Amino acid sequence: MPDARIAVVGATGAVGAVTMRLLRERGHENVRAFASARSAGRTLEGGIVVEEATPKALASAGVDLALFSVGTSASRELVPHAVRGGAVVVDKSSAYRLEPGVPLVVPEVNGERAREHDGIVANPNCCTIPLTCVLGPLHEAAGLKRVRVSTYQSVSGAGAWRMEQLRAEPPAEHDLAMDWSWDGDETDEESKLRSETRKILELPELPISATTVRVPVLVGHAEAVWIELEEPLSPEQASAVLGAAPSVRLVDVPTPGAAAKTDDVLVGRIRPDRAGENGLVLFLACDNLNKGAALNAIQIAELLLGDRVAA
Amino acid sequence: MPDARIAVVGATGAVGAVTMRLLRERGHENVRAFASARSAGRTLEGGIVVEEATPKALASAGVDLALFSVGTSASRELVPHAVRGGAVVVDKSSAYRLEPGVPLVVPEVNGERAREHDGIVANPNCCTIPLTCVLGPLHEAAGLKRVRVSTYQSVSGAGAWRMEQLRAEPPAEHDLAMDWSWDGDETDEESKLRSETRKILELPELPISATTVRVPVLVGHAEAVWIELEEPLSPEQASAVLGAAPSVRLVDVPTPGAAAKTDDVLVGRIRPDRAGENGLVLFLACDNLNKGAALNAIQIAELLLGDRVAA
Repeated sequence: MPDARIAVVGATGAVGAVTMRLLRERGHENVRAFASARSAGRTLEGGIVVEEATPKALASAGVDLALFSVGTSASRELVPHAVRGGAVVVDKSSAYRLEPGVPLVVPEVNGERAREHDGIVANPNCCTIPLTCVLGPLHEAAGLKRVRVSTYQSVSGAGAWRMEQLRAEPPAEHDLAMDWSWDGDETDEESKLRSETRKILELPELPISATTVRVPVLVGHAEAVWIELEEPLSPEQASAVLGAAPSVRLVDVPTPGAAAKTDDVLVGRIRPDRAGENGLVLFLACDNLNKGAALNAIQIAELLLGDRVAA
Repeated sequence: MPDARIAVVGATGAVGAVTMRLLRERGHENVRAFASARSAGRTLEGGIVVEEATPKALASAGVDLALFSVGTSASRELVPHAVRGGAVVVDKSSAYRLEPGVPLVVPEVNGERAREHDGIVANPNCCTIPLTCVLGPLHEAAGLKRVRVSTYQSVSGAGAWRMEQLRAEPPAEHDLAMDWSWDGDETDEESKLRSETRKILELPELPISATTVRVPVLVGHAEAVWIELEEPLSPEQASAVLGAAPSVRLVDVPTPGAAAKTDDVLVGRIRPDRAGENGLVLFLACDNLNKGAALNAIQIAELLLGDRVAA
């Protein structure tokens, strides 16, 4: 498995850089880096020289797996060429997430679906991943009825340039924002959070309402979540369920700062919903570049490589 | 009315400074400033010299109104002396808010209650004020059934020293926080938001669930709100109701930055709650030092002074 041939496409972006670091830390040694013409030729840590991500280069790269972390339109353009070249693609953009036949995978929640791919596995949105890590186990324990969530999303989710902008801007200018495209009366982040969560949990009708907000924090997303359940579940029972859930770590007050550079989804403030029956309220935080993006993709990749080794 | 004798107690704090400025802008000329021994002797804009806020000084100040913006324990200690001296006190701390017989007032929502005071009128929490400006008119229109709210509160709500701290701290350290005292499994900010909203709206059983969060923004609080109503109310109808409500201004995307230094509660993102029936979701923002604190207190004061002039 460590000698699988892996390409990282978009290797110089905010998520790509974390992907390169995590692959190195996890012992993957046969890694090539691709990016746009602007970054091609740069030398990354470990002496890896960035190659230009052209359709031809990707079709002839001869890799087992390609981890894409580029924008949606670049994914639409380039992913088919990598697939044509024989790679299984794990794509972090929203290009293929809702496409029938493309598995949308959080390994802890629906890892078995990854095997049903036809060349592409999609990596969910950075807010969907930690949310489903929490909703999945609670659904198994007591059945989900309704979910409401408001997000506190760091600027790194909008790209490396927004991190530079925040670093340069005086604190008096720090503000909240809803800097996404609009999908009717919602941000497309809000509609993604709903449709992706439904697909991953295989609950196509689950009522979900989201309000997504950008906050002036560099790294780490948080979410305030209200969960209505089919069956009663006390905060103590929910804590026991979540404490045993993979990738979840219970803490008193989860914050982006505490989650940054860790692999875990931090969950806390689990209490009854005083506004509803069979309801729980909780707060979660997760490193949006790590488990919220790069790590989840690598976990999908390792799951597929594990099958290959076992086969 | 402009020649009413007014004392501002806590005149050098974050809210006190805004109170002094707004009083000046609104033509109040007979204003004295009180603060702790540490600030006594300082000269403020307009040549007003800060006096020490001792029990004796307040009992003998001979003012019509005293606007307190000091901490809860200082209010408990000093307010009775100002009342004994014949002043009507508008107190911004949480010391008296839930006390029976003490009106808790948002002039646009329950201004008539201010007249029932027995020397003290309480000014609500900085999140409660904008929330009730929105919930009051919606309740009249369609009846409130349940309310869920998550907050995005700026550091100025925690005091001027936190503003200095945020200004001095590198952006990489900016984080979310829940820097309130705990009241069982809630922050005391969350329980205040519930009990104060119930008192102001005179709905003692209204189910309200809140998650309060501090964000690294200097001034301005925002709230993501889910409202379940007794009767159906479309987003268009809700916009019409709120567009006609006093102190509410409809905008596309309310943010603390847009609300800062304005008198209005900005409301937007009004849409159906996709997770419930007869539900609305909206987002609001308000200057927590202005309408969220100082301006609301001054509006209460002016309402009481107006009665006195009319009497």
